[in-house]
Amino acid sequence: MRKSVPLLGAFLLAGAAAALECAEAARSRTKEATDQTQLDDLVVANRILSDQGVVDGFGHVSARHEADATRFLLARSMAPGLVTADDIMEFDLDGSALDPRGRTLYVERFIHSEIYKAHPEIKAIVHSHSPSIIPFGTTSVPLRPIYHMSSFLGAGVPIFEIREAGGLATDMLIRDPELGAALARRLGKSAVVLMRGHGDVVVGSNIQNVVWRAYYTEINARMLAQAIAIGGGPIMYLSAEEAVLTDASMQRVEARPWQLWKQKALGR
Amino acid sequence: MRKSVPLLGAFLLAGAAAALECAEAARSRTKEATDQTQLDDLVVANRILSDQGVVDGFGHVSARHEADATRFLLARSMAPGLVTADDIMEFDLDGSALDPRGRTLYVERFIHSEIYKAHPEIKAIVHSHSPSIIPFGTTSVPLRPIYHMSSFLGAGVPIFEIREAGGLATDMLIRDPELGAALARRLGKSAVVLMRGHGDVVVGSNIQNVVWRAYYTEINARMLAQAIAIGGGPIMYLSAEEAVLTDASMQRVEARPWQLWKQKALGR
Amino acid sequence: MRKSVPLLGAFLLAGAAAALECAEAARSRTKEATDQTQLDDLVVANRILSDQGVVDGFGHVSARHEADATRFLLARSMAPGLVTADDIMEFDLDGSALDPRGRTLYVERFIHSEIYKAHPEIKAIVHSHSPSIIPFGTTSVPLRPIYHMSSFLGAGVPIFEIREAGGLATDMLIRDPELGAALARRLGKSAVVLMRGHGDVVVGSNIQNVVWRAYYTEINARMLAQAIAIGGGPIMYLSAEEAVLTDASMQRVEARPWQLWKQKALGR
Amino acid sequence: MRKSVPLLGAFLLAGAAAALECAEAARSRTKEATDQTQLDDLVVANRILSDQGVVDGFGHVSARHEADATRFLLARSMAPGLVTADDIMEFDLDGSALDPRGRTLYVERFIHSEIYKAHPEIKAIVHSHSPSIIPFGTTSVPLRPIYHMSSFLGAGVPIFEIREAGGLATDMLIRDPELGAALARRLGKSAVVLMRGHGDVVVGSNIQNVVWRAYYTEINARMLAQAIAIGGGPIMYLSAEEAVLTDASMQRVEARPWQLWKQKALGR
Repeated sequence: MRKSVPLLGAFLLAGAAAALECAEAARSRTKEATDQTQLDDLVVANRILSDQGVVDGFGHVSARHEADATRFLLARSMAPGLVTADDIMEFDLDGSALDPRGRTLYVERFIHSEIYKAHPEIKAIVHSHSPSIIPFGTTSVPLRPIYHMSSFLGAGVPIFEIREAGGLATDMLIRDPELGAALARRLGKSAVVLMRGHGDVVVGSNIQNVVWRAYYTEINARMLAQAIAIGGGPIMYLSAEEAVLTDASMQRVEARPWQLWKQKALGR
Repeated sequence: MRKSVPLLGAFLLAGAAAALECAEAARSRTKEATDQTQLDDLVVANRILSDQGVVDGFGHVSARHEADATRFLLARSMAPGLVTADDIMEFDLDGSALDPRGRTLYVERFIHSEIYKAHPEIKAIVHSHSPSIIPFGTTSVPLRPIYHMSSFLGAGVPIFEIREAGGLATDMLIRDPELGAALARRLGKSAVVLMRGHGDVVVGSNIQNVVWRAYYTEINARMLAQAIAIGGGPIMYLSAEEAVLTDASMQRVEARPWQLWKQKALGR
Repeated sequence: MRKSVPLLGAFLLAGAAAALECAEAARSRTKEATDQTQLDDLVVANRILSDQGVVDGFGHVSARHEADATRFLLARSMAPGLVTADDIMEFDLDGSALDPRGRTLYVERFIHSEIYKAHPEIKAIVHSHSPSIIPFGTTSVPLRPIYHMSSFLGAGVPIFEIREAGGLATDMLIRDPELGAALARRLGKSAVVLMRGHGDVVVGSNIQNVVWRAYYTEINARMLAQAIAIGGGPIMYLSAEEAVLTDASMQRVEARPWQLWKQKALGR
Repeated sequence: MRKSVPLLGAFLLAGAAAALECAEAARSRTKEATDQTQLDDLVVANRILSDQGVVDGFGHVSARHEADATRFLLARSMAPGLVTADDIMEFDLDGSALDPRGRTLYVERFIHSEIYKAHPEIKAIVHSHSPSIIPFGTTSVPLRPIYHMSSFLGAGVPIFEIREAGGLATDMLIRDPELGAALARRLGKSAVVLMRGHGDVVVGSNIQNVVWRAYYTEINARMLAQAIAIGGGPIMYLSAEEAVLTDASMQRVEARPWQLWKQKALGR
């Protein structure tokens, strides 16, 4: 323990500096460089989601491999807020690690593998227990978009009841491909599926997109709970048409919050 | 409150008086120096609003140019928390950048241009998606002042419904001068207008004033939601008369929180 | 007093160590030293209340002078979070500064002067707009103690309605001795008085005591609002007897949170 | 969940298995080294609970001594966020310090001594006033698990009413062995017991386990309050069976948040 304190100090200094160095080195790369960029973005995504409170010690974010649609990138089993590039591993669509190296894997990696298998258009996935969405998974009040930032919710937010796919006696986890496939079916064409008594899964067209969606799903849930509490008659949600048009516009400005979140997450 | 009534005349002049005092030191400066001070204050305003959670990756703050009422200052399209002096641009009242330099502009700059055009007395504007005000834009519960810090809400807080001006199929954004003009009309003589499913616009007599108002609009909304939730009969709001008198007094002390917020925002 | 500025710098660098050293060094001081300790504690109180969110840019904390009960210490008009020893001034019980030095004074210093005048047993006072207490000042739901940390609320929390003392047309501020005296009467033997549409005043037997009370008044209000929201029948408050016994016990451990809060407030 | 039932046996062994793995590295250590590790973990537990807002200036965490089940480790009377290894003391099951050194002790150390005496399987205990659980101690709404992270609540959360054991006139504190014994009886086989008007006690099989439970009890209470507020019919809690299976699985991954929390708590 005498030694652990100086070691920890070193780790803490390493933070933002490592990320910057990493980005620096990436500038003149070729194909490996592209892969490296995706890898770096995935590390940043882990840090942002942790820094913004979407994930705590649990939750994970993955990206479909840019060069091979049958693979995806996901960290080894650990808290997202501590993930570095070295922790990212490659998996196939059965949820097997290509190079396991004896590492502990997320039990729930089948969330990712089965959704990538079922939905070719999906390129990035977040699974979280983000605090404001849990209540909406346990009641009959639908999670709908109350402002433009969460317009992607306009396609509807289904609830996945694990008892339907796994029976009455489960540990709530998506711990095998069958449960992952059932979850992927429940997701359908939506951007978000709530998991009763567990959390949610958010999908997107790229890493920045899915981080945006995971963040604003949480914010929308918090605001909607507040709107319900203040009362005053029916809440005016975005209409289906407004949601579609707004989501298209919002996707054009995804880089804007990413820059801010990245600086906050790596600067600490 | 025997003394408050005679003092009222003085209070009503307080805004201008404070501005004059502030400007006193500036009198011997050249025009460039004056511009620089306003520019610096606008950067600080961006940082404060981000640091205090009024804006996240989105939202913007502008100021009418001190030397030319037909121009205003606004950042290029980016997260307010990252704005530096170099990012601030000048716009005319049609929302055109005087020196575009190929930069990406806020799609919604017409919020600013049209309000400055319609309301000559307005010198600074904040547009935000501040979290506690969104619910009030989606219900029929009016946002009214429950304490002295938000007395500027006493003039009423209208809700802008974009469907009335833009039809049923919009992306919710104030993306052209016509929508900006409709929003400016809905604002009227109020300090704040809520935008259904989007956010709000807060206007003021100078940069410190509008930052105060944007901040305390958020705080008032949060407290009011809490007051509604605890119940206990009708909420005692500030009366119209109290609101007018209090707003005049509060404008005398606008510099007090600004110093604190500035240190917090720049100290990180 | 002149020496305190360099001393404060040292505190900021040294954190808890400085506090311990300070306490150590204080042991053999004379009367000036005692005054200096009180002064330093008042600076710390300002910083703690700001750091813990009891005050924002506004609010103030005072202490009755240890060596002269007809005087009290209070900062010049500024944000509590920025107060240094040099900003603390002495006032008499009419609210006049003994050495004004042309400084701007808190308009509401009469809160302090009149309460000290009316209640000789009171040695320290906090006035704040602490966020969770504002709603309780605007409704008929009484603020009562739901746990032991806020047992001092057991004596009841009256609401001061400025319209009764100041008429319908005020700016909500305690800006003269008459209003201060009315507020002091409304306080009575309670530890806290709510001010409708404004905030509260908390009184105590010393600086640590009043900081504790201001903090736990806020926390109690937040928890009570939550208890009301979850429903489930009548809330079990501390009984009057429990409140008296508990308050006595709690006063014996006031130094415990102070040390933590001090380190947090000065360490940033 | 075909696989979950055969896996169940493994899950039920998971706690012990994890403990053995953890202990593996320790096998060649001397007894002193083992003690040192437990001591260091207890310091970290204090810091984590403070950093994560489970405790404020008050609350405490203890561990049954690894080498002697008739002793436990607990800090001297101080804020948990400031505890260092030197502040940890040893107590016997009567709540007496083995080496008092004239230090001030927590008045409520009998919470720990009596629970360790009554429940040999309990190895670590947290007592806190964690903010979201206080309301549930004052109403009749039961605190039940709404997600997998708090599945340990499935055994039920009794409320301890001090009036039953201590009479109508107490200071709410567990200040003697008799009150501690009554509290231990009320706890029974649950993981958590709420104390009306005071806080809660959380028990576990080791330090990481009890920190997890104290943290997620708070988070579950916050989420449940939100679920109640949004309404929408009966809340879908984890069933008793789901809770048992999930708790077993969760104990396998207790180290994951610990690493994150530790870095956050010590890095500040």
